[in-house]
Amino acid sequence: MTRTLGAQEIEDLAVGAWILGTGGGGNPYLNLLNVRGQIEAGHSFELIQPEDLDDDAAVAVVSTMGAPVVMQERLQGTADVARAVEIMADYLGRPFDAVMAVEMGGSNSLQPFAAAAHLDLPIVDADAMGRAFPEAQMTSFAVGGLQPWPLALVDPRGIEAVITHAPTWKWMERASRSLTIEVGSIAATCKAPRTGREVKDWGIPNTATLSISLGEVVRRSRAEHRDPVTALCEANQGRVIFSGKLVDVERRATDGFLRGYAQLDGLDDWAGRTAGLDFQNEWSVAYVDNEAVATVPHLICMLDSVSGEAVGTETARYGQRVTLVVMPSPGVFTTPVGLDHVGPRAFGLDLDVVDPFP
Amino acid sequence: MTRTLGAQEIEDLAVGAWILGTGGGGNPYLNLLNVRGQIEAGHSFELIQPEDLDDDAAVAVVSTMGAPVVMQERLQGTADVARAVEIMADYLGRPFDAVMAVEMGGSNSLQPFAAAAHLDLPIVDADAMGRAFPEAQMTSFAVGGLQPWPLALVDPRGIEAVITHAPTWKWMERASRSLTIEVGSIAATCKAPRTGREVKDWGIPNTATLSISLGEVVRRSRAEHRDPVTALCEANQGRVIFSGKLVDVERRATDGFLRGYAQLDGLDDWAGRTAGLDFQNEWSVAYVDNEAVATVPHLICMLDSVSGEAVGTETARYGQRVTLVVMPSPGVFTTPVGLDHVGPRAFGLDLDVVDPFP
Repeated sequence: MTRTLGAQEIEDLAVGAWILGTGGGGNPYLNLLNVRGQIEAGHSFELIQPEDLDDDAAVAVVSTMGAPVVMQERLQGTADVARAVEIMADYLGRPFDAVMAVEMGGSNSLQPFAAAAHLDLPIVDADAMGRAFPEAQMTSFAVGGLQPWPLALVDPRGIEAVITHAPTWKWMERASRSLTIEVGSIAATCKAPRTGREVKDWGIPNTATLSISLGEVVRRSRAEHRDPVTALCEANQGRVIFSGKLVDVERRATDGFLRGYAQLDGLDDWAGRTAGLDFQNEWSVAYVDNEAVATVPHLICMLDSVSGEAVGTETARYGQRVTLVVMPSPGVFTTPVGLDHVGPRAFGLDLDVVDPFP
Repeated sequence: MTRTLGAQEIEDLAVGAWILGTGGGGNPYLNLLNVRGQIEAGHSFELIQPEDLDDDAAVAVVSTMGAPVVMQERLQGTADVARAVEIMADYLGRPFDAVMAVEMGGSNSLQPFAAAAHLDLPIVDADAMGRAFPEAQMTSFAVGGLQPWPLALVDPRGIEAVITHAPTWKWMERASRSLTIEVGSIAATCKAPRTGREVKDWGIPNTATLSISLGEVVRRSRAEHRDPVTALCEANQGRVIFSGKLVDVERRATDGFLRGYAQLDGLDDWAGRTAGLDFQNEWSVAYVDNEAVATVPHLICMLDSVSGEAVGTETARYGQRVTLVVMPSPGVFTTPVGLDHVGPRAFGLDLDVVDPFP
């Protein structure tokens, strides 16, 4: 089923995807400005379902790699990610039939739109994370054991590369990360292309629609003076795990990632209690009174307690009133193989997964 | 004219190319062991002249990138550089007609031999440096303004990439260097392919033959109890600029290069005088009594005063008796454009070229 997205749906998607970003992936706002420009220029956006793809259809999987904080300073055009898709098509010797996001979380949720407008391709209503994750091996495609190569990478000054082979997803991550860092910690990429069959088998379906609906929930709740946090929980099986005030944020940029720890003091129902959050680009573990109550791969979302909008790891600051909500991970990541890729230990934490959805 | 090289000629080439390495490019000894193995396995090596190439012939330009000191620890097989040529041929969609060295100086002088045996290709008697230089933009092809891309890069664990475009030679250097560092500071590469016409116009001819003849001079002088240093000077317009004892070597590994300064006290005719040498992988400036007497692009060679064999920047050590010889640069590097690429200022030194061959 093909659906043409209107301007309001894309605005809603940006808000919803920032919530699914679980603190990382970068605020989609600047990318939204780009896509608004494409809408004004007359482009329309067709959203198709994985089932609409032929088994042998070629799907381009796109994202911008790099440090979200750089994305806020070195602005991207829409042509870069389209160029990455073109390079991949040239390398493969065949055109693509559709484009999809590697992560429907944060700014990368809008990259398929930027590419689709240039290349006149439909966008698949699916991604490979169902949220944001920091590394290339943290995808449903990697959990499925699909081929990690090739990957095309573009810097708009004309540095272009194809990583034609990598023995593992982690090596693909390392090789592409080193090039990304060299060109300034931001690069447009077209990841390993997928067949329609692979997207149907291993893609996480419906995530563009989910983002749109979460954004719509926030918008309507605010218009109707209802609590957006409660409405979001109802919309996506969320549970409030804490509410309070940010009292400290420790950040360090190491190995190309933003890592650190945020501390909260409780307010209202949570008065007298404390919470803490580990992060590597995204929130990875939430502690209440020093006990882990939620971990990756489940979605730990920090929401502005009043507006319901997401708060990112790079912008969270002293004094903000926030509510922590956990939403369930896509099932592909809670299997033993999935947890090898994206459980707490994959983030270097000596901790088993905590499932707040027993 | 095609010439089949015998085992002795390849032994001589290794000695001569280490002298032309001007302190850098790594001791060819380990690569020589590899090629000896190929000879024992029955491979033969055909040396052809640039004039033997059709104008539209495809020539693979090969080298190992990285830190020579790593090459002494992490041993290379012969298949890696051949694999880089294969990846490039696949990317271009056509086979190669011949292979050549990017630098006939140090260990890279033997890489075309390793590849040629695997691929059954002739070796062109030419290179793009006439010596060793540390960076990709320091070639006659770069001075000629030829296209810097594509470049294929191989790590034997299965990390393979093609840099399909770079706006400048310096960006090609940076992009390929970052991947090289990530895979462990050593990688086999097939540089931008050249046509026969380009090799005839911009290659530095006769450098394999020159290496063989310099190695032969060293071998025969020693057999005949003549001074090899004097014989080398006669063979390649060399001039002795100092002779003495190494009294200090300061080395620092920065930005993937070996940089530093070596100091010598004079002996015999040079007693009471001092000399110093700047280096970035290769010897770049020679000072006598604190006055620069020779600079890049001219070939500053540190030779063992007795054996005539080269002494490398990574192995030079206190107490060695050495003689400094300068040999003239290929003409392509002493033009104003050439000096932009490889003059002292290209090495970050605030110094004009010093030409010891007035």
